[in-house]
Amino acid sequence: MTAFEDRTRRCQERLAEVGADAAVLFPSTNLFYASGFREEPMERHLFLVIPGEGDPAFVAPEMYDDQIRDASWVGDLRLWADGDDPMAVVADLAAELDLRGGHLLVDDTMWALFTQDLRETLPEATFDLASEVFDDLRIRKDEAELAALREAGDLADAVSVEIRELGEEAIGMTETELAEEIDRRLAESGGEEVAFGTIAGSGPNGAKPHHRHADRKIQRGDPVVLDFGAYVENYPGDQTRTVVFAGDPPAGFEEVHEIVREAQQTAVEAVEPGVLAEEIDRAAREVVESAGYADEFVHRTGHGVGLDVHEDPYIVEGNETELEKGMVFSVEPGVYLPGEFGVRIEDLVAVTDSGCERLNDSPRTWEPL
Amino acid sequence: MTAFEDRTRRCQERLAEVGADAAVLFPSTNLFYASGFREEPMERHLFLVIPGEGDPAFVAPEMYDDQIRDASWVGDLRLWADGDDPMAVVADLAAELDLRGGHLLVDDTMWALFTQDLRETLPEATFDLASEVFDDLRIRKDEAELAALREAGDLADAVSVEIRELGEEAIGMTETELAEEIDRRLAESGGEEVAFGTIAGSGPNGAKPHHRHADRKIQRGDPVVLDFGAYVENYPGDQTRTVVFAGDPPAGFEEVHEIVREAQQTAVEAVEPGVLAEEIDRAAREVVESAGYADEFVHRTGHGVGLDVHEDPYIVEGNETELEKGMVFSVEPGVYLPGEFGVRIEDLVAVTDSGCERLNDSPRTWEPL
Repeated sequence: MTAFEDRTRRCQERLAEVGADAAVLFPSTNLFYASGFREEPMERHLFLVIPGEGDPAFVAPEMYDDQIRDASWVGDLRLWADGDDPMAVVADLAAELDLRGGHLLVDDTMWALFTQDLRETLPEATFDLASEVFDDLRIRKDEAELAALREAGDLADAVSVEIRELGEEAIGMTETELAEEIDRRLAESGGEEVAFGTIAGSGPNGAKPHHRHADRKIQRGDPVVLDFGAYVENYPGDQTRTVVFAGDPPAGFEEVHEIVREAQQTAVEAVEPGVLAEEIDRAAREVVESAGYADEFVHRTGHGVGLDVHEDPYIVEGNETELEKGMVFSVEPGVYLPGEFGVRIEDLVAVTDSGCERLNDSPRTWEPL
Repeated sequence: MTAFEDRTRRCQERLAEVGADAAVLFPSTNLFYASGFREEPMERHLFLVIPGEGDPAFVAPEMYDDQIRDASWVGDLRLWADGDDPMAVVADLAAELDLRGGHLLVDDTMWALFTQDLRETLPEATFDLASEVFDDLRIRKDEAELAALREAGDLADAVSVEIRELGEEAIGMTETELAEEIDRRLAESGGEEVAFGTIAGSGPNGAKPHHRHADRKIQRGDPVVLDFGAYVENYPGDQTRTVVFAGDPPAGFEEVHEIVREAQQTAVEAVEPGVLAEEIDRAAREVVESAGYADEFVHRTGHGVGLDVHEDPYIVEGNETELEKGMVFSVEPGVYLPGEFGVRIEDLVAVTDSGCERLNDSPRTWEPL
């Protein structure tokens, strides 16, 4: 049995546990996790139906015939051609599997275009989200997954060091040029594709937590938030350092950087099996709050990382998930001073038997390397 | 009034025409089209609610405050912090706008995660798709949009020629290395980001229409399908050529290439206002069919291109949309011989007063340049 088939069988066990009749997936990381076939969401109808018992089946455009057979262990393909009605194929499959009045779990990221079609084609069915079965399967990574995540971490670390070694060369580059340089090096070092839009936020742009990059030129003394990663064997890296390429940082920066570094260190040290996800958030937040920057730490402390760059467990107040061995997530406190600068430091960590393993370990200092 | 506000007002007129009470958008090209704010889908709740009358409002994570204000003309922001319940904010807004029992049009690409939340929070509302109003607005491009699409076409053409000039140098490169080279050149020539995963399918891999690239090394005489483009000012390029870098192609390739070239030319010549979208598909298909390859042309002839790489009008049997000035779409017939090779030739075209303008014009030959 392949790893993919094994995961599908465990999905079927979970379907029974939660009282659902089938999972209906579309191109997503859940679909890859269960089938081995990977594709981006698109406007063509492509579903993987995993019934509670028996074998799963694809409904797919016929042009995907070879690709699905090459990639997946699933042998039951119901193909449709351009001009056909794909929902008629779905209706037939639902009748065959006795799912017309079933309780169906659809992919959390399934487009409304398709959920509306499913509701119209199967008016007696009820719908909920596939995360109900997949999140619990995917939250604990196996050894192969951890190996890929380690590689992705090493890649991000290596590029982080290379980029910081630009030093004076980075002064005068635009943020966009710097981001392109990062992306080029990630690709050249073996990254499959960037895991998310690379962030290079300089000076006041660093104070916007999800700013990516713009045509602002990097100046001497600018703090620059560098947040990036690339996929290795389908698993992403995600690492942040806040650095100064050359010159003296603005007043107050060193203090804020040290607060964020300490918050990050404290939170990482708090990670071990049995601790609640929200306690890691609190560990970071307490350091930042007691330094007087409570209102400037405007986001949660982290997010799980796996096939999706953002997945369970979220490291946020209110998440009472108990940490377990094999869980992987980011620890990334930040402080943002609008109009001045921002500081964020982020590593991925994997929970171990007794604590955690950092998947990133490039220098967390701000000074030029 | 900005172009974005003007589009929102036209959206409101269309809402009244179709009998809907509001559009509820999430990070999508519709949201950008109406607001000027661009973001990728993500697991945090971010909505733009456009009621039939009055001003639209964002519901957004508070960390997006500055970014939305910088990018959008929409001034009404309802912010929530990590740990808050974003759907409570949505419930309040819906009550204020009298939308609790309304007919709401959600983004076609909105994740089930959010449509399920909307259905739970607004159990008396009914739901349909926002394409009902946006497709008709977006299908005809204005001059600014056409200018961006022309630039994106020129960029793809230029990189196509550069890559083909690699000639002997391409022999021995893997498909992945070639795709990375294409992506690098697209970025260096001013592309904002690739419009879709670059396709470099060599030999038998070219016979899989949506194969991207793999570690197969390009050999002398291999036909290679090259399909790529990059965004320029938010509008994408999308162009395909099937080429031989060096050496003699396999038996039968020249004939198939000529059939596809003629099918593409015939279809482009058929484009003019008043013709139906499906007639363009038929024009291409008739050439391929009469040459005996009906079953090897396994996809539609094209798709509209605008803020989305795939949008209306689709060039497919059954689409009776009448072509109008300003519509932009791909014309891309293909013939795929499993285990041997594939051929596809694709240009974007813009419908004009009396015919069409090709937005791509690099050589459609297969021979080394």
